This record gives sequence, C-alpha cells and structure tokens, in this order.
Amino acid sequence: MKIEDIQSFVPPVRTLMGPGPSDVHPRVLQAMARPTIGHLDPAFVDMMDELKVLLQYAFQTQNALTLPVSAPGSAGMETCFVNLVEPGDKVVVCQNGVFGGRMKENVERCGGIPVMVEDEWGTAVDANKLEEALKANPDTKIVAFVHAETSTGVQSDAKTLCEIARRYDCLTIVDTVTSLAGTPVKVDEWQIDAVYSGSQKCLSCTPGLSPVSFSERAVEKIKGRKSKVQSWFLDLNLVIGYWGSGVKRTYHHTAPINALYGLHEALIMLKEEGLENAWARHEKNHQTFSAGIEAMGLSIRVKETDRLPPLNAINVPEGVDEAEVRKRLLSEYNLEIGAGLGSLAGRIWRIGLMGYASNMKNVWYCLGAMKTILSDMGVAIN
Amino acid sequence: MKIEDIQSFVPPVRTLMGPGPSDVHPRVLQAMARPTIGHLDPAFVDMMDELKVLLQYAFQTQNALTLPVSAPGSAGMETCFVNLVEPGDKVVVCQNGVFGGRMKENVERCGGIPVMVEDEWGTAVDANKLEEALKANPDTKIVAFVHAETSTGVQSDAKTLCEIARRYDCLTIVDTVTSLAGTPVKVDEWQIDAVYSGSQKCLSCTPGLSPVSFSERAVEKIKGRKSKVQSWFLDLNLVIGYWGSGVKRTYHHTAPINALYGLHEALIMLKEEGLENAWARHEKNHQTFSAGIEAMGLSIRVKETDRLPPLNAINVPEGVDEAEVRKRLLSEYNLEIGAGLGSLAGRIWRIGLMGYASNMKNVWYCLGAMKTILSDMGVAIN
Repeated sequence: MKIEDIQSFVPPVRTLMGPGPSDVHPRVLQAMARPTIGHLDPAFVDMMDELKVLLQYAFQTQNALTLPVSAPGSAGMETCFVNLVEPGDKVVVCQNGVFGGRMKENVERCGGIPVMVEDEWGTAVDANKLEEALKANPDTKIVAFVHAETSTGVQSDAKTLCEIARRYDCLTIVDTVTSLAGTPVKVDEWQIDAVYSGSQKCLSCTPGLSPVSFSERAVEKIKGRKSKVQSWFLDLNLVIGYWGSGVKRTYHHTAPINALYGLHEALIMLKEEGLENAWARHEKNHQTFSAGIEAMGLSIRVKETDRLPPLNAINVPEGVDEAEVRKRLLSEYNLEIGAGLGSLAGRIWRIGLMGYASNMKNVWYCLGAMKTILSDMGVAIN
Repeated sequence: MKIEDIQSFVPPVRTLMGPGPSDVHPRVLQAMARPTIGHLDPAFVDMMDELKVLLQYAFQTQNALTLPVSAPGSAGMETCFVNLVEPGDKVVVCQNGVFGGRMKENVERCGGIPVMVEDEWGTAVDANKLEEALKANPDTKIVAFVHAETSTGVQSDAKTLCEIARRYDCLTIVDTVTSLAGTPVKVDEWQIDAVYSGSQKCLSCTPGLSPVSFSERAVEKIKGRKSKVQSWFLDLNLVIGYWGSGVKRTYHHTAPINALYGLHEALIMLKEEGLENAWARHEKNHQTFSAGIEAMGLSIRVKETDRLPPLNAINVPEGVDEAEVRKRLLSEYNLEIGAGLGSLAGRIWRIGLMGYASNMKNVWYCLGAMKTILSDMGVAIN
C-alpha cells in the first residue's frame, strides 16, 4: 500500500446486529463531534459529575465509585481484577463461555488462584455448583461470573449467585457488558461488589469506554491492599483523584473527552426513555425476533428461561456454510451479524438486538434477509 | 444533582493551548461522527492497514508492530513496560520531570528494578550521567527516557541517548507523547526499540488513543518472555492477532471504532501537510511566540537549545497569582493554558502550540490576552 493513495475513510452504512458494536444513534455521533475541551476544564468536570449520576442510574446503584474507564470493556474487566485480586487470593470463576475464560486469565495474571466452576457453553451458571465450590474452598475471597455471556446469548441468575457468594463472605465481580440497559441489572438490590460493562452494546454508544461501579466493601478492600495494584493506568486509588467528588481534580491520565460526550448523550437518551422501558423494549423485540426465527424453522441455542434478550444465539442448520451467510448479509444487505466463538464457532450465529439497534425495523429486516439468503442457498425453511 | 435536570452537553468553544488536548480540526471531529461499523468488518480492517502505514510515516519507521493502543498515552506507556520488562529486569530510567517518575512506577509495578538517573526539572537528560549509570550497572536490560517532557517543555537528545543505550546492549523505551509530529522523531534512524505517543497533542486528534511502535529486537524480547505479560488487555502477543497483517483478524478487544476514524483523518492531514512541514511550522510558531513572550518582559524556563517547540514553559513573574491568570484566560478569552506540575507547580505556565493549534492566530491571541490580563493585574510588562 502506498501512503499517497490513502484517502479519508468514509465507512459504509451498516445495520449492526452482531454481538456489538450496535447501531449508534445520530444524536450520540453528533455529540462526539462537538469541540474538544480540556480534561480539567470546569465545564468538563461538571459533565463528569453528570456522567456519574447517569451511570448510577443505569447500574441502579448509589455507589460513589461509579465511572467510565477510559478504554474498552476488557479494560473494565481488568480494572475489577487488578484492583480486587491480590497475589495468593483464591477466586472462584464461573465459566459458561468465552468471557469466563478471560476472567480466569485475569485472575492468574494478578497472581490469584482461580477455582473454576464450569458449565456447558449455551447454558446458565449452575448456582448449586457455585455453592459446592465455595464449600470446598472456604478460603475463597472473590466470586466472579458473567451475567450475560456475549459468546453464547445466555443470561445467568446474578441475584442468586451474588446471594450465595455473600453467604460465604466473598466479594463479587460481575460482567454486565451485554446486559446493562438491555435487561435488568440491579447493582444495589443484588449487592454486587464490582461490575463492569461496555459502551457499545445496549447503551448504543461507540466502543471504547467501560462503565464500572464498586461497592463500599470493594473500595475498602482496594484501599486496604497490601501490594500496589499492578496496573498504574487502572489503579483506582489514583483514578479516584480524577473521577472523585469535589471541584479539585488531580490529573491522572487524559480522559477521552469526545468519547465521553458520546456516552453522556447515550445515557441522556436512556434516561429519556426510562430504564424499565428500555428493558421492556429489548424483551419485546427479542420475543418477536425469536418467534420469527422459529417460524422459519430455525432453532435457538439457549433454552427459553436462560435467553438474553439483547443477543440471540441461532443454531446454524446442518450443512450450511455459516460464514457465507454472514458474508452475503454484509455485502448484499449491509447487515452485520456475529459468528460463534470458541467451542461454538461454526455452530451458531449471534444476532444482537441491542440498544438503538433493538427496534422492529431491524427485527423484520434481519428475518427477511436471512430468509431470502437461506432459501437462495437451498436451505429448507418455512 | 437531580438526574431529571441533566441536559445534553454542549461544550463551550475553547482555544486549547495547554499541554494537551490541543485544538482538534473540524475534519477530525467530522470523521468521528461517521457511522460506526464492526471491528471485524472488512472495510474497517482495510482502514486499520492504512492507519498502520500512516503511523509508520509519523514515527518514521518500517516497524511491522506499529499500531494505536485503544486507550490514552499512559496506557501506551504501560504497554511498553508490561511487555518489555520482566520481573527482576534492571531498567535505567532518566527522570527530568513528571513522566520519568511515572516510568519508574511502571518499572516497579512490573517487578523490575529501576535505576534512576536524575536531572533537574526544566533541563534535558544528561547523556554523561546515563553512560555512568550504565557503566555502574552492566546488567541493565532497558533504558527508558522521555523525549519531550510535557511537564517542563524540555526536549532531550533522543538520538544520543539511544546510541549510548545500544552500546551497552540495552533496549530503549522512549516517550514521544508531546514530540510526535511536532518536532523530529525518527524511530528507525535513532534505532528506538519501543516508542509511544498520544493522539491529542501534535497529531490534533481527540484524546484516547496511544500510537506505539516496536522494533524487531523488542518483538523478539516480547515473544521470548519467560513470564506472561501481567496485563491481558495490553499483552502484545494477543493484540498482534487483531492488529497483525493478513485478512484474518482474531478478536481480542473491541476497538474504539470512531476514535480510530478520527486518528485516521488526523494522520491523513499530517500526510497532506508533510511531516517536515509540520515540524517547521511548530518551530516557526514557537519562535514567534517565544520572541513575543520575551519582548513582553517575561522569561522562558528552559534554555534555548533544550526547548520543545510544541510546549513553552513560561516563568510566572514574582508575586503573580498564576491560577488567577489561567482562570481569567479561560473565562474572559475561552483560552486554556496549563499550570506547572510537581516541583514546578505554581512556578510556570505551560503553553502549548501543538498540531492544529500551532498557528499564528493562536500565537497572537495568546500573547495579546496575556498582555492584557497581566497589565490589568498590575504586573510590569512591556
């Protein structure tokens, strides 16, 4: 490639129904294009305070330590682990998909000892298995699990899992990347200690930010650490000086100003709609879409009670080249859906109905496009 | 604050002449508002390849491992340290300002052993002291220093420091956050092994991304590590699967799509101007500004040979309330300049002429505004 030939990038206009990013509302895109101001500008600091209040609403929490990490969801995950896990800490990790495996990686890289509770990919975390693991490992400090497995379209019972963890005096770390604003997440009611999400799923913002929230118990553990947090960038003891309350903010790193404009606008839109209404909209569109998929003769991977409204896992029919279907959806319909990951690669499609993208237009567009392409490929569908 | 009262955020229009972020060109802001597409979309992957070529140009390197880290400059710094420093590695860190101290923090958190070479804040790194430190510590693995100290407005002689490091068989980590595109940075000619920068300084993009580049020697060390990189998010062995070459990209984390649109556009503008022309523009505007400052009777902190064109450190005249001056510049002129940090807090102003903000309009605006305010405050100036 010659540098002389490189031109301004004008992206195609897609419909984003993969596992994220999801479609971004024009209001959010416009907000990102507003003039950049300084990260210590009083006007910006006021906006940061508003962002905290809006995130507390989205997470349904009063936690003071609620903020967007200046990097994507995986950095939000890492923020939880590097701050809460000290070398030698035993951490029970419930794995039922890709992201539980990433949690294990995080525990190990922090010098913690992971104890795995494994469930089949495509099923929810089994609360009984968690309880057994905690009985067998009474020195466990933390329980970590994924509320909404983006790799499988499964939702686990976060409330019950947190109750069990608390009974064994453990802190909880919960991944809500694909659930926040798309299905109930109640941080205070469920007494979650550390939670992280992503901006690019049901919040309908662009990717690059990771909202997090920490309970008082979690903050105590972080402040009382014997060892320094291994990451300088993600050390909440330092980040708190910038995102903490009061007029005086201490420079830590330069915040991604315009990305935060976008998240602020996305959260304003969530507030305008109302969180319960957003949950209900995701549920309704998911129901319509699932019914359409099943009416077509296709099947859904996950049993009905465990399904995650923002993300549908559809079984690829026998003999169908799943990549070809995705390729044609993209090239003929400008429609992006996702492939399976890990042990489900080649076996499922992941079709998102997240945030702004969770609407009836997308539901019917995707059903129609899939029906047309599958028929054209000779697959017997209704 | 009541959530009901929170409105869309419409920032004031500032002139950004602090230590960064700097003014962002409307073309870059517009690029960021283009429709989001998927991080594995073929159109996006093509743009990633272009971004690499454009960054190689900015860094003046052929390094294959050249990419923007999905987080601000301090995460770029951390990327260099966590990947290159293994527990027990001795690292000579040259410190002549805030960011050398942050390097020390990074070394320690990676389990490395920092050996400090200290120079007075406001002066350049002394090459002789580096050589002495390396003589005294023949088991040193890495030399780290800041090319352009954002806290003091000083430029050090990166070429000579790298030569010395190489003579002692050390890898080099170089901070070019405030120099890249604003004053010569020649990664291949100077044989730098690991370099990081920020998007929000002389590249005139919004904050949130950190361009990095690694030599073959650095990549060998990373691939041959005995221990895992302590950060999953910043582990280049994994990131390379997404940013590496070829059509097939492995999902690692979700890239900050729209921020990357912005960086792509900012780099296109750099290419259009020409790197040498950008350096010359920064130098010319710096000269005019410095002359204006001195003509006013104010003085510059840094001796002439060590000055960093994109960032001017101005001594606060005796008895002047420096914060009041900054406050009035912001409220009366919508003009942001920076305060001193660390040992220079209260003693200097940091006035940036970076990227798009390095122009004659800003030079004369800032000189005029400072003259007016200082006169009004009763300071004797010409």
